[in-house]
Amino acid sequence: MKFSKWGEEAFIQYLTTQFSQNGAFGIGDDCAVIPQNEENSWLVTTDALVEGVHFIKEQIQASDLGYKTMAVNVSDIAAMGGTPKYAFLSIAIPKDMDDVFIKDFVDGIKKACQTWDVFLLGGDTVGSKRDLFINVTLIGSAAPQNIKYRHLAQNGDLICVTGPLGNSGGGFRAIQEGHPVDADIKNLIAAHFHPEVYPREGKWLASKNCIHAMMDISDGLNCDLRRIIKRSIKGAIVEIEKIPVSNSLLKVCKQLGWDSINLALTGGEDYCLLFTVSANDFDLIQYEFQKEFGKPIYNIGTITEAFNELVYQSQGNEIYQNLNNYNHFQ
Amino acid sequence: MKFSKWGEEAFIQYLTTQFSQNGAFGIGDDCAVIPQNEENSWLVTTDALVEGVHFIKEQIQASDLGYKTMAVNVSDIAAMGGTPKYAFLSIAIPKDMDDVFIKDFVDGIKKACQTWDVFLLGGDTVGSKRDLFINVTLIGSAAPQNIKYRHLAQNGDLICVTGPLGNSGGGFRAIQEGHPVDADIKNLIAAHFHPEVYPREGKWLASKNCIHAMMDISDGLNCDLRRIIKRSIKGAIVEIEKIPVSNSLLKVCKQLGWDSINLALTGGEDYCLLFTVSANDFDLIQYEFQKEFGKPIYNIGTITEAFNELVYQSQGNEIYQNLNNYNHFQ
Repeated sequence: MKFSKWGEEAFIQYLTTQFSQNGAFGIGDDCAVIPQNEENSWLVTTDALVEGVHFIKEQIQASDLGYKTMAVNVSDIAAMGGTPKYAFLSIAIPKDMDDVFIKDFVDGIKKACQTWDVFLLGGDTVGSKRDLFINVTLIGSAAPQNIKYRHLAQNGDLICVTGPLGNSGGGFRAIQEGHPVDADIKNLIAAHFHPEVYPREGKWLASKNCIHAMMDISDGLNCDLRRIIKRSIKGAIVEIEKIPVSNSLLKVCKQLGWDSINLALTGGEDYCLLFTVSANDFDLIQYEFQKEFGKPIYNIGTITEAFNELVYQSQGNEIYQNLNNYNHFQ
Repeated sequence: MKFSKWGEEAFIQYLTTQFSQNGAFGIGDDCAVIPQNEENSWLVTTDALVEGVHFIKEQIQASDLGYKTMAVNVSDIAAMGGTPKYAFLSIAIPKDMDDVFIKDFVDGIKKACQTWDVFLLGGDTVGSKRDLFINVTLIGSAAPQNIKYRHLAQNGDLICVTGPLGNSGGGFRAIQEGHPVDADIKNLIAAHFHPEVYPREGKWLASKNCIHAMMDISDGLNCDLRRIIKRSIKGAIVEIEKIPVSNSLLKVCKQLGWDSINLALTGGEDYCLLFTVSANDFDLIQYEFQKEFGKPIYNIGTITEAFNELVYQSQGNEIYQNLNNYNHFQ
């Protein structure tokens, strides 16, 4: 059978059955957790980016590619409440690649390391026959009692996100379809190539006991919220009208006839945080978050007892959508 | 300029100038070292393998590829005297790849993890347009005072290796040239696809103060010994006759007209340990190593004061060889 039929979830499930984990754990969360002592656990995440699958070399600035490579890993550490620390970069470079591209790529990595106080400690540099491959492993640290997982959502929790959804997906679509770049499309493309990530916010949220489950949105809300409810043995109702969508995305969608909600649910690569908070504590968290960071959190729905059921509501009516998630293998 | 002109050393040098390392360190050794406390430091290594560059899918059993992927990382941890602990596997899989290959590959990874008590804690599984790309990051631990580096070779130290050289290079050449596989060629191919690595030996050697510099031989003795002398600001004399070469390699070389010493010096992927030991302590170390592991160490030369000069001697005569090292980028 062709491997492309599997999908990433099935393969991760398969790996989970093949390997025991002995005290440390992590397959299924944004990072692996390696307990160290009472004050510190290590968080480890790794992300691979492949030319022609995750990026088109001719469409992205090399420095943006470097920055984004680091950002997606920082977002994984943020998603569990950790502080990013040490990075390891593997890169397989096609023989005919121009060295200016590689230097600019390294500049992007460097800028990202400076932004988040991350130290690049090593890696591997090899040749590639045809495509550029990049892999970053990022190690972070966290206080053990503060680490947040996907499996602890509680019935009645409010579901929240830290930023607007769909901008990155809209930017990607605009590039693919080759539309002229006005100010709004420029905003969307910037969100795609230079995503905002939330390590300070993640650490802050993780320090609060009333935050139960947390992850970042990398594959789209529809896909990632399903991960939380599946692992928490819960369900969820999402109120479409509450999903934060930027003015730029709304304007571009209106202009080009795109469905902004579909992009917000399935576009992916938003890299904002998705978390659940006990309903009683939401108002205080919302207030304190705004005070601390000068920006809001957005409540978009509620955790329910209906296992594995993700219901989308619009104006009080249930909408069961068969949304297609992206499968990297196809 | 095409990046292929750079070579790996120049690129690593460039990276070193671009990134500061803040207490942790590692670019230029087999692993990065992250100090933890008085009893423990973390060692981190990462290795990338690319289809068509590091392996030909049709020539290697998938389980051997999995095993070797882990082995080369275990060897890096061994090279600094650590114990391998936690692995992270990134794999970019072409869409048309058969899932039997992937399952066999995972079996090889699993077998390796069992052999060395390593726990696979996570990774990333993504699609690839054309080539299979694999990256493993391996975290190990070591007592801080025991960690061995490349830069501490002393004048007069004896240079030693823990196993025969050139088998893997011979096996690779036999495969490329398509020779019929007799018992000896089979041994060489086994060394190439299923290399012996030395984590127990590395940890033991690292616990001895008289061992000064250590690394593993991945790119061939000629290339890797140059790394030790360059970083130690020393030189070296290697006595060709002392280089351990297996009977299988000698027989195959005689039969096919190959130069066994050239393979031993430049073939690469030997993955035995290369270390320097103070001359006064060599006899005792040799005796104790034999007693502990039931196999010898091999003294092949001496560290000198002649900075960056690697001299090969045969029967007392100096031979200055212009040996070409392998450049992955070309």
